[in-house]
Amino acid sequence: MFIVPATARSWVAVDPSSDFSLQNLPFGLLAPEGRHVTLATAIGDFAVDLTVLRDAGYLSIHKYRVLDAFEEFTKEDLQELRRELYELFVDTNSELRNDADTRSKAFVPLENARMLLPIRPPAFVDFYSGIHHASNVGMMFRPDQPPLLPNYRHLPVGYNGRASSVVVSGTPIHRPSGQTKPKPEEPPVFGPTKEFDFELEMGFYTSRPSAMGHPVPIEECEDHILGFVLVNDWSARDVQRWEYQPLGPFLAKSFATSTSPWVVLPDALEPFRITTYEQDPEPPAYLNSPKGMRYDLRLEVELKTAKAESYQRISASNAKYLYWGFEQQLAHQACNGTPLGYGDLYASGTISGPLEGSFGSLLELTWRGTKPITVTETGETRTFLEDGDSIRFSGYAQGDGFRVGFGNVEGTVGA
Amino acid sequence: MFIVPATARSWVAVDPSSDFSLQNLPFGLLAPEGRHVTLATAIGDFAVDLTVLRDAGYLSIHKYRVLDAFEEFTKEDLQELRRELYELFVDTNSELRNDADTRSKAFVPLENARMLLPIRPPAFVDFYSGIHHASNVGMMFRPDQPPLLPNYRHLPVGYNGRASSVVVSGTPIHRPSGQTKPKPEEPPVFGPTKEFDFELEMGFYTSRPSAMGHPVPIEECEDHILGFVLVNDWSARDVQRWEYQPLGPFLAKSFATSTSPWVVLPDALEPFRITTYEQDPEPPAYLNSPKGMRYDLRLEVELKTAKAESYQRISASNAKYLYWGFEQQLAHQACNGTPLGYGDLYASGTISGPLEGSFGSLLELTWRGTKPITVTETGETRTFLEDGDSIRFSGYAQGDGFRVGFGNVEGTVGA
Repeated sequence: MFIVPATARSWVAVDPSSDFSLQNLPFGLLAPEGRHVTLATAIGDFAVDLTVLRDAGYLSIHKYRVLDAFEEFTKEDLQELRRELYELFVDTNSELRNDADTRSKAFVPLENARMLLPIRPPAFVDFYSGIHHASNVGMMFRPDQPPLLPNYRHLPVGYNGRASSVVVSGTPIHRPSGQTKPKPEEPPVFGPTKEFDFELEMGFYTSRPSAMGHPVPIEECEDHILGFVLVNDWSARDVQRWEYQPLGPFLAKSFATSTSPWVVLPDALEPFRITTYEQDPEPPAYLNSPKGMRYDLRLEVELKTAKAESYQRISASNAKYLYWGFEQQLAHQACNGTPLGYGDLYASGTISGPLEGSFGSLLELTWRGTKPITVTETGETRTFLEDGDSIRFSGYAQGDGFRVGFGNVEGTVGA
Repeated sequence: MFIVPATARSWVAVDPSSDFSLQNLPFGLLAPEGRHVTLATAIGDFAVDLTVLRDAGYLSIHKYRVLDAFEEFTKEDLQELRRELYELFVDTNSELRNDADTRSKAFVPLENARMLLPIRPPAFVDFYSGIHHASNVGMMFRPDQPPLLPNYRHLPVGYNGRASSVVVSGTPIHRPSGQTKPKPEEPPVFGPTKEFDFELEMGFYTSRPSAMGHPVPIEECEDHILGFVLVNDWSARDVQRWEYQPLGPFLAKSFATSTSPWVVLPDALEPFRITTYEQDPEPPAYLNSPKGMRYDLRLEVELKTAKAESYQRISASNAKYLYWGFEQQLAHQACNGTPLGYGDLYASGTISGPLEGSFGSLLELTWRGTKPITVTETGETRTFLEDGDSIRFSGYAQGDGFRVGFGNVEGTVGA
């Protein structure tokens, strides 16, 4: 664990509103023009090519070590690398600052940086840990029952998703077709979804495998968490409603899931950890974790239609609304002896806040389509997403004069 | 497509009850002692090392081609390879028969052959296409409603499973722990499952990837199906009951799934295809397939307890009881633009027949534990699996004097 002092500043210009302060130093996979894919970090307005830094002798990574995949590095490697990057970028060190040649090769403006999916996950699991989201869905779909199902506060409900559909921010998202049943008295129909939605989530990648039949105790789960991303779990609500009984969501979710390109290490989020959180009832021993992994992270959703020129904020939420901590999710996944992989992706479930403007899906924001959203710039309204609509998530922890953020995850809905 | 004539016989001794006739020639992944992992075929009582055959000049595979993974071969490659193997093993060809040296190197008695998981699947999906199983479960869990849910005959219900838990036959199966709620009025408890069950299924591997956003039309789905295996989708019923609302089975299934080691090509099953099968209502166009992929395949389940010396048959079913054909399952999976991979594994769902002795799970065979099974040899009874119990599935198509079978999938339940 390495925490960058809150007062430290970099010689790289970093706007206080930038996601990529000296306190962050996340890792991503950069495909630089004309060069090999490489691990990169982000600071201020730049992605920084770590292969270039290594070749110029600024990093302790051996010159023959392959830098083209996260899988080449343990979590401990990346933690150490992040510490080296801090020492390189802190304003008391002018070595790289004065090396214009290396800087010009290594620094790629973020707007030009082609980022790849950090890790192609061998497994993708989606939890349901946003308690306000679960309550809202319960209220809408089971109005005659308590909003939360009896198991909700006893275990982190989740399901397996489709790992091969996980894509990086910026990938166009096709409108899926599927079977739906718009009218109860008529047969189902097949065609493009009419209830295209997003889900505001966070996710974490795992850092090392575990053996089948050997559950990972919750005390060790934090060590298995490599870092965090934002996740948009695109959803086709009409498909979901018709298909999901009795085995859960399938094609309504499996067509695409977007993630942000930068993996933020737990070290960078540590100062924003929420140290007090009451769970009632007290979780069973295998989920009991005195120092839970929960963070105060502001999350935003913005919408831009094809006709509009700018994004409009439609929701503001916070990761603190997750009922289950990240290490609890992982301990639950592992408790039956399922083998964990390197780079499994675990998404949190939709993170809605308690109030209307803080909901994490259109289903909730428009309350099942009954309260359309108005796009101020164009006067258009939306209940669900139309072709050409773009959705952008952002998220950050607010420090004193700096932010630790994720960069955006965005996607435009296509035909 | 290459169909071995029903009258053809091999110079290799093949008992009429053997799964591995000249008409079969499946592919598997063999780890021969002291040599590299290699593709193999099976005939009679032997696994046959294809690297040895290639090196001795019996196959047209180039000498530098890697033979250590299915992924190196397209379906068309394997179809062609199977034809070459037929020509080598048919009794009118004495070339290899007379080459004792090569035979002694290539032929490994099946009981000594260490077989690996054919393909590490990038995705594992489990359907629910056994209509009698779905009805039985409905009767048990929703006695006041029609046994089948309204969507059942309109689409192949399915869910994503855990690909990293798929293991080959013979792998010991640990008893998973999990959260259960044995008494409605008391809080849930955590511990080893008390309702350890099996599920008798078939599965198919896919043969080539498809691009995201481009559904595979049902006419092309058959070409995407590489071959078939038997699948045991081990299940913890008590865990499932408590966890599965509202997002479906998760930890109750993800701890282990076993498959048979031999991939039987559709070519070998073609003569056993069921050419007439009525679906009511008629499936929608994207699932409509005049020449469905359904087969007449006898399936058996056997149980052996730790105290017993021999297996006892506890169920006999047939793949013809699947309501949805394999190509319909794949067309459904692909209809939303989910990208298919090479080697995705799709399991069928539990294949129960209509009668009591043909059910594909203990849940059904013992009707929720109310009708225990007696082990004749020892006098023991079983409602669910105890530690030390072994479950073995077998399956085959019966030809005129020969069989096309899968070999077994077996697993012993451990502590």
